[in-house]
Amino acid sequence: MNKIKVTIWNEFRHEKQMEEVRKIYPEGIHGAIAQGIAADDLEIRLAALDDPEQGLPDEVIASTDVLIWWGHCAHGEVRDELVAKVLKRVQEGMGLIVLHSGHASKIFKAVTGCSGALKWREAEEKERLWNIAPTHPITQGIDEYFELPHEEMYGERFDIPKTAETIFISWFEGGNVFRSGFTLERGYGKFFYFQPGHETYRNFYDKNVLKVIGNAVRWAKPVFLREMAFPMVPALEEIRSTGFGAPKAGIIQNIDGSNK
Amino acid sequence: MNKIKVTIWNEFRHEKQMEEVRKIYPEGIHGAIAQGIAADDLEIRLAALDDPEQGLPDEVIASTDVLIWWGHCAHGEVRDELVAKVLKRVQEGMGLIVLHSGHASKIFKAVTGCSGALKWREAEEKERLWNIAPTHPITQGIDEYFELPHEEMYGERFDIPKTAETIFISWFEGGNVFRSGFTLERGYGKFFYFQPGHETYRNFYDKNVLKVIGNAVRWAKPVFLREMAFPMVPALEEIRSTGFGAPKAGIIQNIDGSNK
Amino acid sequence: MNKIKVTIWNEFRHEKQMEEVRKIYPEGIHGAIAQGIAADDLEIRLAALDDPEQGLPDEVIASTDVLIWWGHCAHGEVRDELVAKVLKRVQEGMGLIVLHSGHASKIFKAVTGCSGALKWREAEEKERLWNIAPTHPITQGIDEYFELPHEEMYGERFDIPKTAETIFISWFEGGNVFRSGFTLERGYGKFFYFQPGHETYRNFYDKNVLKVIGNAVRWAKPVFLREMAFPMVPALEEIRSTGFGAPKAGIIQNIDGSNK
Amino acid sequence: MNKIKVTIWNEFRHEKQMEEVRKIYPEGIHGAIAQGIAADDLEIRLAALDDPEQGLPDEVIASTDVLIWWGHCAHGEVRDELVAKVLKRVQEGMGLIVLHSGHASKIFKAVTGCSGALKWREAEEKERLWNIAPTHPITQGIDEYFELPHEEMYGERFDIPKTAETIFISWFEGGNVFRSGFTLERGYGKFFYFQPGHETYRNFYDKNVLKVIGNAVRWAKPVFLREMAFPMVPALEEIRSTGFGAPKAGIIQNIDGSNK
Repeated sequence: MNKIKVTIWNEFRHEKQMEEVRKIYPEGIHGAIAQGIAADDLEIRLAALDDPEQGLPDEVIASTDVLIWWGHCAHGEVRDELVAKVLKRVQEGMGLIVLHSGHASKIFKAVTGCSGALKWREAEEKERLWNIAPTHPITQGIDEYFELPHEEMYGERFDIPKTAETIFISWFEGGNVFRSGFTLERGYGKFFYFQPGHETYRNFYDKNVLKVIGNAVRWAKPVFLREMAFPMVPALEEIRSTGFGAPKAGIIQNIDGSNK
Repeated sequence: MNKIKVTIWNEFRHEKQMEEVRKIYPEGIHGAIAQGIAADDLEIRLAALDDPEQGLPDEVIASTDVLIWWGHCAHGEVRDELVAKVLKRVQEGMGLIVLHSGHASKIFKAVTGCSGALKWREAEEKERLWNIAPTHPITQGIDEYFELPHEEMYGERFDIPKTAETIFISWFEGGNVFRSGFTLERGYGKFFYFQPGHETYRNFYDKNVLKVIGNAVRWAKPVFLREMAFPMVPALEEIRSTGFGAPKAGIIQNIDGSNK
Repeated sequence: MNKIKVTIWNEFRHEKQMEEVRKIYPEGIHGAIAQGIAADDLEIRLAALDDPEQGLPDEVIASTDVLIWWGHCAHGEVRDELVAKVLKRVQEGMGLIVLHSGHASKIFKAVTGCSGALKWREAEEKERLWNIAPTHPITQGIDEYFELPHEEMYGERFDIPKTAETIFISWFEGGNVFRSGFTLERGYGKFFYFQPGHETYRNFYDKNVLKVIGNAVRWAKPVFLREMAFPMVPALEEIRSTGFGAPKAGIIQNIDGSNK
Repeated sequence: MNKIKVTIWNEFRHEKQMEEVRKIYPEGIHGAIAQGIAADDLEIRLAALDDPEQGLPDEVIASTDVLIWWGHCAHGEVRDELVAKVLKRVQEGMGLIVLHSGHASKIFKAVTGCSGALKWREAEEKERLWNIAPTHPITQGIDEYFELPHEEMYGERFDIPKTAETIFISWFEGGNVFRSGFTLERGYGKFFYFQPGHETYRNFYDKNVLKVIGNAVRWAKPVFLREMAFPMVPALEEIRSTGFGAPKAGIIQNIDGSNK
């Protein structure tokens, strides 16, 4: 069986700069996720913002089936060219899973077309994630709800496409609710956003959080990988309005907007 | 009554470069649309790619309720900064209507998150647009279908969000079908894509095409205009997990991804 | 201006049988709603299960633009023939608003195709309804959330179509969440479900609850009223596969499934 | 591996009454489909309207993973009680695939909440089905389109939920278009409607039609089978609005609307 090629991208700054975070994730958030979802059917690589080419050289993108993304304070540093390459690959079939504060990343905004705006609060409060899609592949093995003793509150209104398929709705002790897991499709690729994972809590060691991420990886793996194209095509039926079915030579337009 | 402030943006190159197009649209495609949808409740301005600031200085974007967009060969010339400003304004509530070859524009891709890929053919064939959303504001006054004697064929598979609300499905003489009108919402703003309008045909003089565009302008006008925000908010209920409800000072994250 | 013809249907049993309820709603839940949403553009009639023809004779259905439905213990008594007539009228364009315990009514199930299953609890707990569709006509005049000091808890997983447009998500003091307002369209008609309104609390006197119901009435009013049909239609283009475009006489099938 | 238990239900009247149909489907439409999709992972049973209990006694429904439905002239004869049982089983997780003229069946209407109204014509015309969901399990092995030399035309506007996921859009030689394949979910169950299959043509022998039906069976098989319930649940958090978290005894409401 071909293994699923998973790349876990992490901004990987808090772990170096904040002792409080390093204590919780000594090998980085990406390292903790990698250990937590490790399985025989997955081939996992790690990548970080400060690696060469911001961790995602072309050959890595080209050989990734599912990309997991965690970022927070340095969204602005991620190069637009890299975001464009990742989005293009998602449209070609690569799966993308954005975690927690990635709601404000360039790639989240590029995929959703929305701002990712939300309310937030760090008060070490309890979060209860309700599973509202019990037949979805992402929730298999998850009970009707699970709890996290401490998580950063993210609250509605969350600015995402209203047609996103909601997988989890969270209850927060402080009185807020949040669509804490949702899916979209873009081109041939699948996308999942999952809210848990603040750097100062331990939720990437939580068995339910890891189960959801692992399920999402299998769900998001490419059905196929195929370039998008804007082909000029001949008529399939005789065109009698003009007496010919052959296309006229036209201005050829490429997917990048340059002339065809 | 406040008039709806409409800005019609046109690439406005074919009309200058191609005699064939100038003959059809001597005052430009934008000029023809402006005349065709003119009404007492609309205040219409024209803008073009070669105008200062590519036709959309900040004060124009800030005072536009609904932006109509027609582009074809120069998508690549539209500055990314301008696209980002337009997208941000859509998220704040401005309506956006993208026409025909705008399916490959940067703004279409930014709003949809998709490539806009499709099949195409210029064969002067007949198009019949079927109205599948007869109760939608955009189709009021439109019969169950209408025909265009000659239009460029755009055919499926059209790479758009599968959850887009389809308003029209087109039948083409050459054997193709197309989701030729669809809507999305992004942030507080409404978006409509409409397929007719190739530069070498006369369809921006067609009463049904103009009726649809005029309806779409009224449908897409802002409910309100409001900046997106990422507020840190206090708890609404006492948080006993940690014994306090007041948020801890946290890293503040702004909508642009810079540090809060 | 033509007034919107609103019929408020109430099971109207608790008010007669339970002193506790009669004290709160002496003129019935339908009476309280009628007073609460009364306005110049509305023409309101009341109907109850124990009225002749269960409150909805054909001429009432035929002259109703928007039907509001509250039922609880006697869902099983509502005749299937009446449910079929109401569903047919919704498909023809009549608006339908189902309140609270109506989630288990025959008409809710017929419209949604789902069971309406949910969790529930009567514990006089606080409910906070978060407005996640601030640009929707139903939420105009409603802040980002509103609270009800006491309401029956309805909790996820709520068995409704996953593609329903969610308008409100509720936070309950006891730890549950709920999609407490959602919309659907059926045929030419609009449908809204709204969760507040348990018979032993006073929430049909709450200004926000009444504002939402009043907004929903204006949103749900028919765009037009039109019978559904299964017409046999001639070809619009010459059919050369068989050399004729005229339809063969076929078995005519009517919308009720009887032979055409 | 557990085989998928498939039951193919056919009205099975035309084949007995019309020589023209019997010649094409001597063993019935259900027999042809059974032969066409036969595979090691499927355990297929046949059922017909004129069988005892209209072909679907309780034990058959209870032991069916995916039900395929073909009906045309006798929709009105199918007992409402049977339709209710089938819908309940779909909500519990059973897959349902409705074919062709089943768009006017009671079960189609019960699942969709819509009328299934459409335009139609029997003119032996060509149909071309465009695959607009190339990554969906139902379209694997299907090219970007496939053709049927003769099929009954079904045309828009098709009265189905506007949020249905469209899988195929058909082009008809006579000038119509149709959403000829779409999916929905109801409760825990999956639903697929597929348009080809008029009794006087040979399309249940077409390799693409059979491939789609076979794929749909695998896609629609239950994730799990579970009864819907309306449980009264205790509070998960202390309720201080009233000083107790234990639910009050309330009127218990069962899923059938009878008193709890």
